[in-house]
Amino acid sequence: MTFASVTGLNGTLEQVLDLAGIFVFAVSGAMLAVRKDFDAVGIVVLAIATSLGGGILRDVLIGELPPAALREQAYLPTALAAGVVVLVGHAVVERLDRPVLVFDAAGLGLFCVVGAAKSMDAGLRPASAVLLGTITAVGGGIIRDVLARDVPAVFRPDTALTAIPAAAGAAATVGAWEADVYGPVAAVVIALAVFAVRLLAMHYGWGAPMARGR
Amino acid sequence: MTFASVTGLNGTLEQVLDLAGIFVFAVSGAMLAVRKDFDAVGIVVLAIATSLGGGILRDVLIGELPPAALREQAYLPTALAAGVVVLVGHAVVERLDRPVLVFDAAGLGLFCVVGAAKSMDAGLRPASAVLLGTITAVGGGIIRDVLARDVPAVFRPDTALTAIPAAAGAAATVGAWEADVYGPVAAVVIALAVFAVRLLAMHYGWGAPMARGR
Amino acid sequence: MTFASVTGLNGTLEQVLDLAGIFVFAVSGAMLAVRKDFDAVGIVVLAIATSLGGGILRDVLIGELPPAALREQAYLPTALAAGVVVLVGHAVVERLDRPVLVFDAAGLGLFCVVGAAKSMDAGLRPASAVLLGTITAVGGGIIRDVLARDVPAVFRPDTALTAIPAAAGAAATVGAWEADVYGPVAAVVIALAVFAVRLLAMHYGWGAPMARGR
Repeated sequence: MTFASVTGLNGTLEQVLDLAGIFVFAVSGAMLAVRKDFDAVGIVVLAIATSLGGGILRDVLIGELPPAALREQAYLPTALAAGVVVLVGHAVVERLDRPVLVFDAAGLGLFCVVGAAKSMDAGLRPASAVLLGTITAVGGGIIRDVLARDVPAVFRPDTALTAIPAAAGAAATVGAWEADVYGPVAAVVIALAVFAVRLLAMHYGWGAPMARGR
Repeated sequence: MTFASVTGLNGTLEQVLDLAGIFVFAVSGAMLAVRKDFDAVGIVVLAIATSLGGGILRDVLIGELPPAALREQAYLPTALAAGVVVLVGHAVVERLDRPVLVFDAAGLGLFCVVGAAKSMDAGLRPASAVLLGTITAVGGGIIRDVLARDVPAVFRPDTALTAIPAAAGAAATVGAWEADVYGPVAAVVIALAVFAVRLLAMHYGWGAPMARGR
Repeated sequence: MTFASVTGLNGTLEQVLDLAGIFVFAVSGAMLAVRKDFDAVGIVVLAIATSLGGGILRDVLIGELPPAALREQAYLPTALAAGVVVLVGHAVVERLDRPVLVFDAAGLGLFCVVGAAKSMDAGLRPASAVLLGTITAVGGGIIRDVLARDVPAVFRPDTALTAIPAAAGAAATVGAWEADVYGPVAAVVIALAVFAVRLLAMHYGWGAPMARGR
């Protein structure tokens, strides 16, 4: 289930957004591999795991196997293409820091909405659908960090809000679904809101709260 | 399949034990996150992964999807509640060190019996059911440690016996099942024996053996 | 699906090769655990995870659950036996460095062919089958390194080619399948070619390429 089929809009714009999300997530994984001085295998593995890992985890937990990442024709090639781009042109990508972060925020918005809607569609409980929407959006990044032997970025207090807007977006999607108002408009509005909060968090340095007194 | 349904006792005591096991496992994950100075996201993720990860891994491997953790109404909220308690009151929880360890040992006993019985019920081979019972009991803790970038506690020679009593409890459950004497009494006796061995191991500092000559 | 059933040869030679692959992968996991001073639990867990993890990951993604590792009678005991051998005789195994590496290379060849063929048989896309064949061959090693808190060996530029010959072998298997020439001869030829490239890579120190300019 792509963003297109979830939103009911079967246009090319949505398909482009979907693949753009995968592409930039893959770029973020591949760039971390370059910074860690991994070889081409590490670059390609992190590209695939970062971009497709969250959705794969969701599909495994829903029981929709093989996962969309292995069924949809364009997903794996898109992740691989990002790996190749970084392998050859990481110096250029490094300078495109800002656009990559913007697309990454867009991917966060898209993925939490798609993941939550897909989970509701599969008949999961609302609370579980919120969890799976959040996993779709941030699970790939956690897998990336574990494979690269980093503390997961989403756990670190010095990183800008990521999982919280994703969870809020997933919750809003589930709420809209339960209220029977979920559709293209709701999906786009929620995804844009998550995108905006993520950009604002990066700009103003908003982090998640710590345990009391820490 | 809860402890209640496995044992055939449908009372509230068993349900309380089941959720108590999840709660204390979640507390152990959340407390590790606090000690590592993770933010609220890290605390909640480790609470969920530690308490539900072992059972989710078991259900994925059995092919019973979505896993019980996403189907049972009270599981996810219980794990989340533990996360919130630690977020707000970790200083108090720190002082409750001893009761937390006792409940943690109780969770170990419950989870290995439930996991092994559920696996036999699903038609797995005895050896596989022993493995899955053990994974149910210690898998969440391994996932917790990997996410927190620690050496898994169950691999470290300076930690008290954990996986070995769990594996023995799972084996005893499978043995009772094969001998057709598995029922509420057997389940409770085995869970209590694992609980007792774990407490004794912590008290007397019994660790798992090392490779010969190390 | 064992190598025997994939190749159509139901002889004992193939079964021996299949279990030999599991055994040496398990030995490599267990030996890493010894070097890290893990206890017996760590040794056994790493033996199982390294030898059966890649195939389990493949079967989960295909949706063939429970995975072959839990269905086939001899797989889990073979991995456990390797753990026990290392637990008792790691000093001897250390001196058998060279034969272990040779068998490890043989396992790589076998596993990428079996994994790719099994994935095609399950109806996956060719690109997905190449990925799953590669995961079958190197996934267990990645899980081993993550559990032992090492950078995955296949990501490190100072290690000899592993994932690339495995991916090439998986691709050749998929190509043969698509061309309708897959059978015992093709399977054996491809597995031997991967085996040979892996041995040559270790002998001559061939590593995977790095990102341009690194």
